[in-house]
Amino acid sequence: MPRACGPGRPTKVSAVITRMSTLFLRTLRDDPADAEVPSHKLLVRAGYVRRAAPGVYSWLPLGLRVLKAVEDVVREEMSAIGAQEILLPALLPRDPYETTGRWTEYGDSLFRLKDRKGADMLLGPTHEELFAQLVRSEYSSYKDLPVILYQIQTKYRDEERPRAGILRGREFVMKDAYSFDLDDDGLKAAYHAHREAYQKIFRRLEVTYVIVAATSGAMGGSASEEFLAESEVGEDTFVRCLESGYAANVEAVITTAPQPIPFDGLPQAQIHETPDTPTIETLVQWANATFDHNYGGHDTLKNVMVKIRRPGGDWEITGIGVPGDREVDMKRLEAAVEPAEVEILSEADFAANPFLVKGYIGPKALAANGITYLVDPRVVDGTSWITGADEPGRHYVGLVAGRDFTADGTIEAAEVRDGDPSPDGKGPLVSAKGIEIGHIFQLGQKYTDAFEVDVLGESGKPVRLTMGSYGVGVSRLVAVIAEQCHDEKGLRWPRSVAPYAVHLVIANKDEAAITGAHELAEDLDAAGLSVLLDDRKASPGVKFKDAELLGMPVVVVVGRGYANGTIEIRDRFTGETTEVAVDGAVDAVTAAARG
Amino acid sequence: MPRACGPGRPTKVSAVITRMSTLFLRTLRDDPADAEVPSHKLLVRAGYVRRAAPGVYSWLPLGLRVLKAVEDVVREEMSAIGAQEILLPALLPRDPYETTGRWTEYGDSLFRLKDRKGADMLLGPTHEELFAQLVRSEYSSYKDLPVILYQIQTKYRDEERPRAGILRGREFVMKDAYSFDLDDDGLKAAYHAHREAYQKIFRRLEVTYVIVAATSGAMGGSASEEFLAESEVGEDTFVRCLESGYAANVEAVITTAPQPIPFDGLPQAQIHETPDTPTIETLVQWANATFDHNYGGHDTLKNVMVKIRRPGGDWEITGIGVPGDREVDMKRLEAAVEPAEVEILSEADFAANPFLVKGYIGPKALAANGITYLVDPRVVDGTSWITGADEPGRHYVGLVAGRDFTADGTIEAAEVRDGDPSPDGKGPLVSAKGIEIGHIFQLGQKYTDAFEVDVLGESGKPVRLTMGSYGVGVSRLVAVIAEQCHDEKGLRWPRSVAPYAVHLVIANKDEAAITGAHELAEDLDAAGLSVLLDDRKASPGVKFKDAELLGMPVVVVVGRGYANGTIEIRDRFTGETTEVAVDGAVDAVTAAARG
Repeated sequence: MPRACGPGRPTKVSAVITRMSTLFLRTLRDDPADAEVPSHKLLVRAGYVRRAAPGVYSWLPLGLRVLKAVEDVVREEMSAIGAQEILLPALLPRDPYETTGRWTEYGDSLFRLKDRKGADMLLGPTHEELFAQLVRSEYSSYKDLPVILYQIQTKYRDEERPRAGILRGREFVMKDAYSFDLDDDGLKAAYHAHREAYQKIFRRLEVTYVIVAATSGAMGGSASEEFLAESEVGEDTFVRCLESGYAANVEAVITTAPQPIPFDGLPQAQIHETPDTPTIETLVQWANATFDHNYGGHDTLKNVMVKIRRPGGDWEITGIGVPGDREVDMKRLEAAVEPAEVEILSEADFAANPFLVKGYIGPKALAANGITYLVDPRVVDGTSWITGADEPGRHYVGLVAGRDFTADGTIEAAEVRDGDPSPDGKGPLVSAKGIEIGHIFQLGQKYTDAFEVDVLGESGKPVRLTMGSYGVGVSRLVAVIAEQCHDEKGLRWPRSVAPYAVHLVIANKDEAAITGAHELAEDLDAAGLSVLLDDRKASPGVKFKDAELLGMPVVVVVGRGYANGTIEIRDRFTGETTEVAVDGAVDAVTAAARG
Repeated sequence: MPRACGPGRPTKVSAVITRMSTLFLRTLRDDPADAEVPSHKLLVRAGYVRRAAPGVYSWLPLGLRVLKAVEDVVREEMSAIGAQEILLPALLPRDPYETTGRWTEYGDSLFRLKDRKGADMLLGPTHEELFAQLVRSEYSSYKDLPVILYQIQTKYRDEERPRAGILRGREFVMKDAYSFDLDDDGLKAAYHAHREAYQKIFRRLEVTYVIVAATSGAMGGSASEEFLAESEVGEDTFVRCLESGYAANVEAVITTAPQPIPFDGLPQAQIHETPDTPTIETLVQWANATFDHNYGGHDTLKNVMVKIRRPGGDWEITGIGVPGDREVDMKRLEAAVEPAEVEILSEADFAANPFLVKGYIGPKALAANGITYLVDPRVVDGTSWITGADEPGRHYVGLVAGRDFTADGTIEAAEVRDGDPSPDGKGPLVSAKGIEIGHIFQLGQKYTDAFEVDVLGESGKPVRLTMGSYGVGVSRLVAVIAEQCHDEKGLRWPRSVAPYAVHLVIANKDEAAITGAHELAEDLDAAGLSVLLDDRKASPGVKFKDAELLGMPVVVVVGRGYANGTIEIRDRFTGETTEVAVDGAVDAVTAAARG
């Protein structure tokens, strides 16, 4: 009901209220052709983002508001742990990345360019080098430490497969923080502070996530954990033990090794004629036909030949021995040998090394020819195997680890399977998919060594600093929230990051209702709520559909009931509709918007 | 005086107040070796920015706060004219820039790179192409217009001579806005709205500036004005008429041409032997020796040979005729032929065209050989000149424009000098130096033509949109403010952009004073003032010096007077010190900080 008493209020157009009649926004009826995952489809359909190039996106008004809201949540929690915000360039010189080897290690993922003078430059994928250099140049005494610095910045990685819109882009916004400490205790404290800050951030953003043990990858360093948003469309597979809560990136899963078995009483190994058994399947068929149940107590041992190149070194042929019923998981193998590179041995390599008899390779030929041999942790002393005898059509049966052959070490290269025991012994592992939204690293001294980041210690002697690195995928989080929070009708933003607190729909053509809606918008704005006002000349049906697609948490409808002094408040999450009196509308909407 | 009554307040360390004991800041005693201009020296010495690569800078905590404050002022004034903020990528595909020709036109100033698939990309120097494409893809009806879109974004230009720190960087922050309208009136209104918004922005930032008529350069389009901050270290020379207020970029100055002179009574042109007069100086000596006062009424006409290449065309030799007492100003010439390129004719070119007799080139040989000849606007019909006769040691005397020779057109290529008449006829021009901080363009349809940006008009026929483009150098403004506002002691920030409103110095070792200072900091923060608290264990002298260098507008000193219940408020601009009672300190400091 329009205010009947009091001085007449001007119904001038507000500069503050965002009106959909002029908003740079066009919603789309159809999903974009290149979109596969829900968040990508919805963010494009709802006019939040637009593709500018593969993996490179523009943020339109509503999308930018979500992005800024996520940034602000991150900024507040970083500030709360005493981190100081700075801003480094994205266009960087080659030199520091040459010093750490990452100019090369990043491979094709690094955007490289030359300036007009021919100097090599790059677009920063992450900034450990620059922060280490900066702290070295500014700080000189133990009294200056500890310090946590961070930036919220546009980063660049030339992903091989940019996908899912802003979920995996080539230009993206990241919060990257770096801690510098005098000793390990300091580093652990900084690491823990970030871990807690991240939990607060993701809780405020209402993201469902798990913290998983991770490998450090190209970053180097010792301890590392990933924050993975649970999502079916995630690219990161992780496993967890539902009994204990243990969770780990597949690359970081530690295999539970059985106890060694005494050699006493184990029969001698024998060479069997096994014609036409170059694969595990054919070998298993032969074993089933030859032996009783369980192949006479022997499992098959598969030897996969790879070559490994350490940074600055040559390719070296290596054998990887895994139980025959498991594949080598190349991602696990890559993580295990990091920073070295690894490739499956080529035909040419086999041809050049005739002692490698394809399909029949065994530990003996490897040892005899000085080839490094690494085995799965399950290959403990006393285990007995059917494995290659290094001659076509021949296999050993009963070759015992530790007695008949000795590996050069173990390696985590075999695939992890649902049902494998959790490393904590509390139950089986089950796998799930996730999206990396945060990653925290105890880097240690990898970067401070590279740049000799020392300060004068309390004792008067130089102290080499120890460093941590902590990332949050800020723009990715916009997609993750959309992914976790949408329904079949559209987006549903948590209150902490919604572009507007209230979406006010004018669904009544009466002049009084229109005036009343504009007044309500002004009052809500005055009460501190951000308002998106749908003042378009469209049908209520079109407006309601757009409101559901755009996904503000609270939708207020000035509709037919206005003549009787009521408006509607709709909760976008529960779908509940409440009718409230126009007179107390501001309070009611404020209460709904506060959640 | 510490509060004696009331409940005891905890003196816990605040998470909000920035304390210099932990701030990532080291001030430097000496100017950086590569710094020439005051803003660069001071911003580095005061720890606001650090160099990461040539023309590429890192923003440390205080610098980033100023940058964000400038951004916010710009954002508010853009929002006030109804502009909508979006964010486009910096990493861009080549295609749209190929369409407009700027992939090539930008020359070495464009950072180009290839992605892992070999696709050409660039780092955006300005975004007309992308905004035009975006509006085309979103909007389709005249009802959608007008619209103003803008972004505050990191931009990249590979400057030939990056200089003066963030004053001319290769990575910098810009606000770029684009207007789209149905007709010229709309464009003019958008242009005017930006012009007024910019005046408000620069007034709020307390920058002294002039608006000068400008050429459109590589942007294309018709009308354009530059906002130049007045500064001795500026690279842009502009001229103005102090009588009328007219101001223009030197490239945009229009020469005042005299009235044509009747040919009647003008003597015939004669060829004179002028041995060894290949330069204007030697020719003037000869004329002085040969004729009376004023060379018998003839000025010298110098013909400078250049070659010009239009986009996609071949080099064409052209003669530029200017009064002999003026040089050709290559920047004016370049602006005049834009988007064509221009070069001075090489020795090889002269050798290949023997009719060009160096030192004795005249209009006749040019006409006889089909060479384009463009003259200064002062070379009007009836003016009589001493100029080359196209033979070694020979000059024409009394060669009359319009009678003895006819140019192919006029060109604004001659240098502009202090004392030249203002184009508005109101008085002489004087020159000054400035730094470009804003530039507004009425682009017209250059970009909407390139991308066929049409909407359905009210009449049912397609309407091609007309476009404006409006830039503010956001990061450059930080340097400009520093440049205009510093004194010999350091920086002096205007209240609108100061990193902190109040710099609170603890200059008293008494526990009560220290506690009181912390309490005052909390109270000021609660009153809405941002506070930088110098709680370091340094001498008052060191602290005062840093406070002057860092340049907060209000410095509060908790010093010796504290025991007697007083503190000091220092105004960084006026240098005035006021002693106020501790009891009313919050009000007094708030009043000082509000200015």
